[in-house]
Formats: sequence, C-alpha cells, structure tokens
Amino acid sequence: MTQERYTPALFFLIPGLSLFKSIVLPVALIGFAGAAFADEGQWQPHQLPQLKSELKRIGITMPAEKLADLGKHPMSAMVSLGGCSASFVSPDGLVVTNHHCAYGAIQRNSTPEKNYIVNGFLARTRAEELPGGPNTLVYVTEKVENVTDRVLKGLTPTMSGRERHELVAARVKALIAECETDKSARCSVPAFHRGLEYYRIKQLMIRDVRLVHAPSDRIGNFGGDIDNYEWPRQTGDYAFLRAYVGKDGRPADPSPDNVPYKSKDFLVVSAEGLKNGDAILLAGYPGRTSRYKLPAEIRFARDIDFPAKAAGITADLSVIAAATHGNPAWDVRYASVAKSLNNVLKKTQGLMDGFARKDIAAIKDVQDAGFRAWHQTHAGANKNLLAELDGVIGQDMALQRQEAAWLEATHSDLLKSARTLYRLALERQKPDAQRESGYQERDLSFIKARLTRLEQSFVPRVDEARYGAALARYARIDAQVRPQDVDALLPAQDALPAMYKASELADTAKRLAWIGKDLDAFRKSGDPFIVLAVRMHDAGMALENRRNEIDGNLERVIPQYMAAVIAWKKSQGKPVYPDANSTLRVTFGTVAPYSPRDGLVKGPFTTVEGILEKETDKDPFIVPGALKEAIKAKRYGVFKDAALGTVPVNFLSSADTTGGNSGSAIMNGKGELVGLNFDSTYESITKDWYFDTAITRAIHVDIRYMLWVMKEVDHADNLLKEMTVKYPKK
Amino acid sequence: MTQERYTPALFFLIPGLSLFKSIVLPVALIGFAGAAFADEGQWQPHQLPQLKSELKRIGITMPAEKLADLGKHPMSAMVSLGGCSASFVSPDGLVVTNHHCAYGAIQRNSTPEKNYIVNGFLARTRAEELPGGPNTLVYVTEKVENVTDRVLKGLTPTMSGRERHELVAARVKALIAECETDKSARCSVPAFHRGLEYYRIKQLMIRDVRLVHAPSDRIGNFGGDIDNYEWPRQTGDYAFLRAYVGKDGRPADPSPDNVPYKSKDFLVVSAEGLKNGDAILLAGYPGRTSRYKLPAEIRFARDIDFPAKAAGITADLSVIAAATHGNPAWDVRYASVAKSLNNVLKKTQGLMDGFARKDIAAIKDVQDAGFRAWHQTHAGANKNLLAELDGVIGQDMALQRQEAAWLEATHSDLLKSARTLYRLALERQKPDAQRESGYQERDLSFIKARLTRLEQSFVPRVDEARYGAALARYARIDAQVRPQDVDALLPAQDALPAMYKASELADTAKRLAWIGKDLDAFRKSGDPFIVLAVRMHDAGMALENRRNEIDGNLERVIPQYMAAVIAWKKSQGKPVYPDANSTLRVTFGTVAPYSPRDGLVKGPFTTVEGILEKETDKDPFIVPGALKEAIKAKRYGVFKDAALGTVPVNFLSSADTTGGNSGSAIMNGKGELVGLNFDSTYESITKDWYFDTAITRAIHVDIRYMLWVMKEVDHADNLLKEMTVKYPKK
Repeated sequence: MTQERYTPALFFLIPGLSLFKSIVLPVALIGFAGAAFADEGQWQPHQLPQLKSELKRIGITMPAEKLADLGKHPMSAMVSLGGCSASFVSPDGLVVTNHHCAYGAIQRNSTPEKNYIVNGFLARTRAEELPGGPNTLVYVTEKVENVTDRVLKGLTPTMSGRERHELVAARVKALIAECETDKSARCSVPAFHRGLEYYRIKQLMIRDVRLVHAPSDRIGNFGGDIDNYEWPRQTGDYAFLRAYVGKDGRPADPSPDNVPYKSKDFLVVSAEGLKNGDAILLAGYPGRTSRYKLPAEIRFARDIDFPAKAAGITADLSVIAAATHGNPAWDVRYASVAKSLNNVLKKTQGLMDGFARKDIAAIKDVQDAGFRAWHQTHAGANKNLLAELDGVIGQDMALQRQEAAWLEATHSDLLKSARTLYRLALERQKPDAQRESGYQERDLSFIKARLTRLEQSFVPRVDEARYGAALARYARIDAQVRPQDVDALLPAQDALPAMYKASELADTAKRLAWIGKDLDAFRKSGDPFIVLAVRMHDAGMALENRRNEIDGNLERVIPQYMAAVIAWKKSQGKPVYPDANSTLRVTFGTVAPYSPRDGLVKGPFTTVEGILEKETDKDPFIVPGALKEAIKAKRYGVFKDAALGTVPVNFLSSADTTGGNSGSAIMNGKGELVGLNFDSTYESITKDWYFDTAITRAIHVDIRYMLWVMKEVDHADNLLKEMTVKYPKK
Repeated sequence: MTQERYTPALFFLIPGLSLFKSIVLPVALIGFAGAAFADEGQWQPHQLPQLKSELKRIGITMPAEKLADLGKHPMSAMVSLGGCSASFVSPDGLVVTNHHCAYGAIQRNSTPEKNYIVNGFLARTRAEELPGGPNTLVYVTEKVENVTDRVLKGLTPTMSGRERHELVAARVKALIAECETDKSARCSVPAFHRGLEYYRIKQLMIRDVRLVHAPSDRIGNFGGDIDNYEWPRQTGDYAFLRAYVGKDGRPADPSPDNVPYKSKDFLVVSAEGLKNGDAILLAGYPGRTSRYKLPAEIRFARDIDFPAKAAGITADLSVIAAATHGNPAWDVRYASVAKSLNNVLKKTQGLMDGFARKDIAAIKDVQDAGFRAWHQTHAGANKNLLAELDGVIGQDMALQRQEAAWLEATHSDLLKSARTLYRLALERQKPDAQRESGYQERDLSFIKARLTRLEQSFVPRVDEARYGAALARYARIDAQVRPQDVDALLPAQDALPAMYKASELADTAKRLAWIGKDLDAFRKSGDPFIVLAVRMHDAGMALENRRNEIDGNLERVIPQYMAAVIAWKKSQGKPVYPDANSTLRVTFGTVAPYSPRDGLVKGPFTTVEGILEKETDKDPFIVPGALKEAIKAKRYGVFKDAALGTVPVNFLSSADTTGGNSGSAIMNGKGELVGLNFDSTYESITKDWYFDTAITRAIHVDIRYMLWVMKEVDHADNLLKEMTVKYPKK
C-alpha cells in the first residue's frame, strides 16, 4: 500500500476533531504525494488558460482552453474512486488506477485457493470480471457550479464564529440535499481558499464496479512498505476496473444484468515514451495541502505538532508490539493498524527531517513580510485584517493542542465506537437535514461498515493496553493544555481491566445492535464504555463547539486574507491556486531527476533490471518467475527505451501532487496517457507545506512497463486490444 | 582514518602466516582503494609507452616516455611514506599527503593544551615545524634494477618447493644486504607476477620528517568512520610534511641542525580544476591486489574465506564489547582495536556484498576458459602447466584453511608476544644474513616498537576473554581443517584465568626484557605464555614450512602461468600489469560518476555546501566555525568551479587504485597536481579481485578545496607561496 490515497471519509468516526486524525484510525492510509519543477500549483481546470504561456513553454501542445472544460476530452475521462484518482481508457467503462487503489477489490475476491493478491487476476472475458464490493465506487463528475453566493448570503461580520460556521454548514447540507436527487447522485460543496468560494460538484456514483485485471502484488506492490516514499522504485502499481450500470444506462445496484458503462470519453494510451525533460500533465483529486499557512503555523507544526505526533505514535506502536507479542493471531489483527501507524510515522518523521533540513519557516517569514508590507498600502476596507488573522490563528493553534490531548484521552476503539453510537442517537433526535454532517441518513451505511470492520483489527486486551498507555501519556501533558474538566471524567488506570471485561461492545453484533437505540437506552446502560461515552459527551461537545467557533472565525478571516494574497500575487502577474480539497485539479511539470544530497542524483528513470537488483527470496522483493524470465531474456519488444536500452519502470516528475492523486493519469503534451501517479519521494514529504522545486518529485509508473508486463507476463491481450494504444514507430 | 593505507610492515609479528592477518592486528589499517573506467591497470612506469595511444585518447598530453623515467619529472617527485604515497610540492622538501597518513605525527605532537588533532596545526616558519617521530619517514626512490637473473639463477625444476622458496628468500636477503650500504639506504627486492621478475629498489630513507601543516580533523577526517568507503564524501584529507637532512645533504637522525631536503623535483599545483570526463593520472604505491586469481580461488574466497573472516571478527567484536562493558578505561584501550576490526569487517562485508551482487567467478570462468583454450595450442615446453597450477592452488587453499584455524588457536596478544620473542631468540642463533626476514638486525627496532605499543591497546582480562572465545571457535572448526597435532598443545579453557594471572608478559618492561635472552631462559621459564609459545613452536614451524613449500611451488608455477597469460594477452594486443606489490605504479582514468543502483547516480563531485548538509553537533560531523562561516558567506574566490557554482570538495575517478595509494598525487593531463587520492567507494571493494569498470571509483580530494581551506580557513599563506600554484585565469 502506498500513500497517495486520501481517506477523509474515515474521519467522521471521531466526533468534532481535526487534528491527529491519522493516529487513531487503524486502516487510515493517510496520504499525500507530490512535486513541481518551476511548476508548483494544483490548478483548478478553469485556471489553466491563465497559464497558457507556461504550458506552451514546457512543451504542452494541447490548448489550455481544452483542459479547462470538464465536459470535454481529456478532462471528461478523469474519474474519482473516492480517495484515489483514475481515468477511463476505453469507451466501455474500463478504468485504470493504481494497484493499491484496487487492493480492496482484489483482496475480497481472493481465497487461499484463488490468491489473486499473489497471483494477480485477469478476466479474459467480461463474464469473468469480479465484483469490486461496496467500497469500490466510480465517481464521474457531471456538473460543477459556483454556489458561493448561496452559501454566504446574509452572513454578517458580527455573527459569532460558531453561528457562522453552523449556518454555512447548514447551507452546504441543504445544497447537497437539493442536488442528491437520487441514489446515484453524490454531491459535495467544498470550500476553496477556506471559504472565499464554494462550488457544488455533482457526481454520478457508479456502484457496480468490477475487477478486470491486476498484476501480482509482487509487481503491483513490489518493494512494499520498505520502498514506501523511496526512490529508486520499481513498482508496477496499476490495476483495471470496469464501471457497470443498469440497462437504462443509469447506475444500479450490483447485478449480473448490468452492462458496461458507456464512458463518453477515454484516454488514448501512448507507448511512445517520455524522456528526461519532457513535459507532463497530471489530473486527479488531491486531498489536502497547507500551502498558505502563516510562519507561526509552520513553527507550531514543526516544534509542537509533529514531535508530539511522532512520540505518540512511537509509544503506541511499542504498546501494540508488547501487547501482541507471542500471540500470532493478535499480531495479525493489529498488522494493518501498525502498518498504518508506521506509514503516518514515516511521513511525520519525513516532515520533521524536511523541516530540519530546510528552514521553511524562515522562507515563509520573507514571503509573509513581503505580503504584509504590500498590504499596508492595499488593505482596503479591513485595515485590521492581519491582526484579526494572527489572533484567530493563535486561538486555532491553542485549540489544536487541546484536541491532541483529547485524542489521547479517548484513544480506545471501544470508547470511540461508543461515542459514535451515542452521537448517532443524539443526532437522530433531529430532522435529517439538521443533523451533524457525518450522522445523516446518507452516512448510515458508512457508519455501519466501520463499526463492523472494527472486528478485523481489534482485540480487547490490546485495546486496553493502548488506552492505558494513552491515559498515562494524557496525564503527562501540561495541565494548561489539557481541555478543561476532562481529567475528572476519565477512568482510573486500575479500572480498565474491569471495564474491558464488562463491556459488550467488543462483540460486533452487540455493538451494531446499539444503532437505532434511543437516548434512554444509552443513559440507563451499564456498559462501562457506553457509560464513559455518555459521561464524556458534554466535554467533547464543548471542544467541538469551540472548534466550530474558531472554524467560523477562520472561515470569515481567511477568505479575506486569501483575497488579499491573490490581489498581491496578481499585482506581480502570478495566479494563485487554492489548497487541495479533494476536487479535480491539474498540475504540470517535467520528467526530472533531483539531488537529495550533495554528490548524489536520483532518477528520473528506473528500469526492469533494477527489479532483479532488489530481488530477494523474501516479500516484498520476490520477483515472479515469468517477469524474471522476460527481463533476463531481454524480451523488451517495442517498449524498449532508446536511451536506457531497456524497459523503464518508474519515473520522477516535478508535477505538484498530494494524497488523493494516487492513480492520477499522467499525460504527455498531447493529452495521451503515459503513466500513473502513485507516490512521491521522501524528500518531498514537506511539499504539503512548502513546495521546494529543487527536491519535490512525484513517482509515476511508466505506461511502457505496464503495457510490457501486460503483454509479456500476464498476456492481457484482450485489454491491450480494448484500449487504443499508440505504439512507437520502428 | 580511511583505508587507503597499506601496512605490510605489521605482518611480521605473526610468524609465517599470510591469511587473516588483519583480524589479529589491533592497529592494522588494512586497506585498499581504487577505480578505472575503461582504464584498468596499475602500470609499472616502464610499461606506459605501450599505452601511449590510450593515454592520448583520454586527454593526457604529457608524453608517455616522460612518465616511464623515474629519474625525471614528474615521477621523481613521487615518494613513499611506507604504507602511504606522497609527493614533493616544493624544492625545499615539502611533501603533501593525506591527513590520515600524517595522523601519527599530528597525534604525537598534540596535548590537551595544544590539541592539533582538533585545532589543526600550521607552522608559520620552518622553526615552528614539529618532529614527526620515528614512524614518520620519507622514502625517495633512487634506483630500480632488474635482478631477476640474480634471484633465479641455478634454480631447478626438481627442487622442492621449500628449498626453492628458501633459496629465493636467501638471495633476496643478500641482494638487500648488498644494497643497504648505510643507514639511509632502504632496499627491497619485490617479486612481480609472483616471481616472473624481481626488481631491486633502492630508496633513500629520510628519518627527520616534520609536521608542517594539517587542518583540523573536523576537516581532514570529516565524516570519520561513518563515511569510510562511502560517497557522497566531503573530507579534506590532506596534510603537509617536510623532509630534513644533515647539512651534507644526506639523511640524518633528527636534529635541530638539520636542513630542508633539496628535492630535485616537485609537482606544480594547478587550481584550474577538473570537470566530469577529464583525464587524470595517479602515481603511488599500491599494496596488494589479487587480479589474476583462478575461478576456484574466487570461489574459495567468496564461499569460505570471507564468510569465516566476517563471522570471526563479528564474534571477536562482541567479546571485546562484553569484556570492556562498564569500564570506560578498558573501552578506550580497545577503541582502536575495535575500529580496526570494524574497518576490516566493513571491507569483508563489502567483498561479500560485491561477490553476491556480481558473479565474478562466472566472469573469471569465461576468461579462464578462453585462456585455457588458447593455451592448448600455445603451451610451449610445459604442457603440464595448467594441471600443475590447479594442483598447487588446491594445496594453497587447503593450507589457508589450516592457517585460519591456527590464527584462532593463537588469538592472544600475550601468546603472540611470547611467540615473537621466542622466535627472535631462535633466529639470533644464526648469522644475521641467514635469519628469517623480519627477525634480522634491521628489523629489531620495529619489533621493539610493536612490543612496547601493545600496552596502549591491551588489558589482560579482555585478552583472556578474546582468547577463550577464539579457542572455543577453534574447537568448532572441522577437525580435518585444524592443523595436525595442534589440539593437544592448546590450554584448556579453565586454565586461562590462572595463566593470565601468572604471566608477567602483560608488563611492558618485563615483556621487553625478554629481547636478547637466550634459548635456555625461554625453555626454563615458568611464565605460562612463554611455556605455551615454546610448546607450540614446532607446530607453528611445521605450518610455516608447509607454507614455504607451497609458496615455493607457487613461485615456480605462477610465473610460468603469468608468462603464458602475458603471451595470450599480447596475441590480443593487450599489455598486462602485475598485481600490486607496494612498488611505484601509474594508473590513469577519467573524472566519472557511477550508478551503484538502478535509478541512482553518484558523483562525480561534492561541494562545500554538502559539508553543511551533514553537519551535526557530534563527531565526526562537526564543522569548524571558520569553515562554516566561509561557506555561508560563499567566499569561494578563484576556487569556485564554473559548472558547480561553488568550491568542489571531493571527486570520483575511474583510476585503478588500492591500499597504499593513500596520498597518491592526482595529476591532470599536463602532470600538474590537481588532487590527492584517499579512499574508494563501497561498491569498489571487490576491485582487488575484479576490476568492474562500471562501478569502480576512487575518491579524491580536489586540490581546489585544499587550497581554499588553506587560504580561507587556516591562512596558510606561507605554504601557498612556497608551492607553485597555477590559478585559473579570470
């Protein structure tokens, strides 16, 4: 599993919190990805015509106007899988994405007898295509409209932050409800520049998506966690899905009667290849960035947030290791939890390394000072803006510390389940439209799925050890940082064994049975974790209300700040892209190596020979026999790169990506598919905060490797035929 | 300390053994270095005219004939320091070499108050130059003559190996004695191609050598053991010495009355710089290589020798760690032992990695088969040669295993001292000329120095633990491999505590008092280690005699084999260089990066900015304030490289080097000094066995860095003025 996936949907399990989300989520593949050369920017497609000359300069021949039109080729070939990006590659709904984005679909179809994870899978006919399961969805963007006015109308500067935040949230919910006219419509109203603009995006949610082809994970996940964030890399991180719809052409529940979705657009695949310095375009759904943070926020992250996070995860990992030691079954249960924590830890460590290597705060100081100087003479109506901004950012950072402490105080899977259940019961008292986002009818199936899935990665004794250790960490946090009155609510360490023994929530059926129970049942329950959840509820809500208050203030102040920043940049002739928010973006760059250290150059290409260099007899460096044989025989065919003299596997580019860009189409200057994004380098980890053009690089699968493996190893001739592939002239 | 130093002089402490030498020598900096691009070869200077067109092709403008004449510039500027190489850089005996080659001289002059190791040292006047001590010697080659006929005359094919070996040894000793007419003449008669040719080399040994200048070891040894064998590298591994002689111009004992030696030749220093692809020449004294080993010998090294060596050192290191644990004074005593063992272990591990990465034996199989096919029709007189060769090589490998076992059986510093002393007493029974080499009068001062120096790296309790563990390892060796009858001679494990308690050899004065005692004193002694040495003597001699027998056979067969190889290569138009034997050699190559792995390129240059990248507040990555300030201020001056935009520090070349090449002059095509050799890359470690042109690289200090630090950091203007430096035109 690599880390280009973005999973905001998981966050709803933790009521009202935005910090440290990734620590507590067992299967969270919190991700990111990235790079740009002199080409920083995750652009909204409609911004591209402003960048016309830059696109031309690097060698993109496709007109910028074409890229701005989401209804036309090639943008209409781009789809979201929810957390991953993908694209159509045939008129019959064939979708290409990363192996790690299709992993759930591969896993759920695998059995010890038919192990598609290890052996790969190829449907030779449509009939052989396998159900992807309820979590494998394809989202096709149908409509994008600017709804800023409708969201912001009637908001006044005198409203409290919480009033403002709750009113905006209600408007957003109403706009979504209005849009989701049937089960197939999935709408969202994301804020851009934290509320300067709102767009309503209507997507067609296709819910019968089938697994068509995946190579062995010894190809698709070659290098595994060890090579995660690393270069050199030789991973064939690709897989194929197909969208199916009812005979009427509309999305339908999975059924053998469904027919392939007639995608109105698809990408042509080019095997003609790229070389160092060539221009590329990348389209996908980046999740979240923090590019416009103030220097104080950078220092807060660097000096307080990251170190605390790293220490907490490190401690949690050793508690898990100790608690599962000697019990292989428990060890397996927590393998994915540990993997996910290690992934977050590696990213956090990378952030700390990156911030230590480069004084990003000092760079931001210079930019910030430049802006503030300009702003003095261009402040417009709100002369007080920057003081207000600094004030609310200060409040936000203080609250973040309390929220981090709260996460330690509630770091128990049983408690989190109980809190979700109790909150659900509370929210269901209200009409659906007024319920907190994440607890509406539309969310119910997701809640159920998560509460069920807990059983796969949970052991009461291990959870008890983790919670005990977290409570001890909580007790060591500075008393001024701990949220008010929480201490008294928490269980004593020595009460935990009895609580875990008495609670029935560890039983999946009994846990799920709480869905739909009324408040009275919760309040009268003797289950120690239900009791604790009820007891802690008010403190949690106080924190959430404070968060809403501050978020409301941020949503009032930051759009003004961003408008000023945009004006300042405009005065310099520079367009401004919004921070990533899981909406469709386009970035461009060039195929480019980088120097991570003095005297060392990485990339831009790896080759099939590099696979054999890394071969061991142990996972994740086992090379399938057929692949090995093809490499040794140098059966490169038309996929041989003239300069390299062999088949390229992965390459680096300077494109600007982040988590959510997994599976993003890499196009050449003509808009043809030449690769798939799947990761970025370790030195790029800080790019979510500061885009350092010298070292930020995204890692892509070269389409030539994909096609070569399909031909030589997996004999996927049916798919090679279905796609429109341009082969190089001999 | 880096590993380009070669220390054969230390080997005499172990009677009659050639294998595993490095394991048992506390301060042995067993070394090597190296690289070549398509330019493999450590050429005898007289061979260079044969390589004329190749030299020209890569860009060496100096005539090959000039390089062949040891009496003329630039070859007459090259000197040996005994284990290191160096060169004259002024007419007043100023010598430049590596910092690690001058380390002894720096260390012996340092005190806590005047810490020249950390602070560096600069003599601003000749009067301030400091005595280098008895181990700091400069050897100037005066005469080289081919004495093959005199060594080999009258040898017959029917002689036994041992007869032959001993006769050759006696002839060599006589030739040396004849040549060493006074205390200043140091002669040697090295064999080339293991006895195809012998040359007598007469060197002027200058014994008053003074320390002139060394940077701080935070420059000269930046990166220390951590960066040993590594790239990227940023080490300013240079220092200056000066040779002094009596007023008559002849070498003299150190005295304030001595005057600088008037070097008849010296190198001009060029600060004009090199760039990627530029040709370089490298002259120095490489110690030993094994380039002409048979495939069977490669497999023996790979499968038996290296793994056993690595296991033995690893075990020994953990015994040392356990035995010194909790006792800082003991820990200090064994620090250099452990450092040296770790260095050998890293090299051995590198050899194992290299042999695992590339099937060198298979490559040699192809070469060997080619030669054998040719030989069938060109065998000449000795049709039986290859069968004989295989036979004696087989015997040699079998004996090497016994010798390795013997080293475990005698792995005690006290026992080794006792054996040296007893052997000395035995040899002194004979006339000096007949004594075993290493025990002659000319060797006595070296023996005393070593027996004295033991006190710096010895603790009886630690030695006892090491010996106990070695005896246990010995007992686990296959009985068929253990030398005959040795088992019965060895002490029981439980006898060791009493032996170490009773022995007086741990006391330096008492140890030295044994020098000069007669045999009777040894035979009557009750000292347990003297008793053990006497008891083991015959077994040791049996092994030594067997070694002489096999060496004699090798010396008979291998020259015939090498003559055939030379004829075979000549038939292909290719000259053949002899394996390194600590004699003056010239190699050439180009400044060149390399790819250690798919997707990764290293070199060819590092820069001063890389120093700051590695800076920590801990040794060996502390950056001196003045250096840091100069880098941050970008005070590059004329030393700025146009392409890099900064001052280069180290660079890689494809030149073919090995241990002993430390301090070797790197010259540009015009014969001007542009750098100093000091190390080679980890991937190059196998080069002593097989020169892989794609990955073998030597690491050099760029002279521009040296000059820049001298100017900007150490203000060594007096030396910059004394040398003839060509600065780039502005």
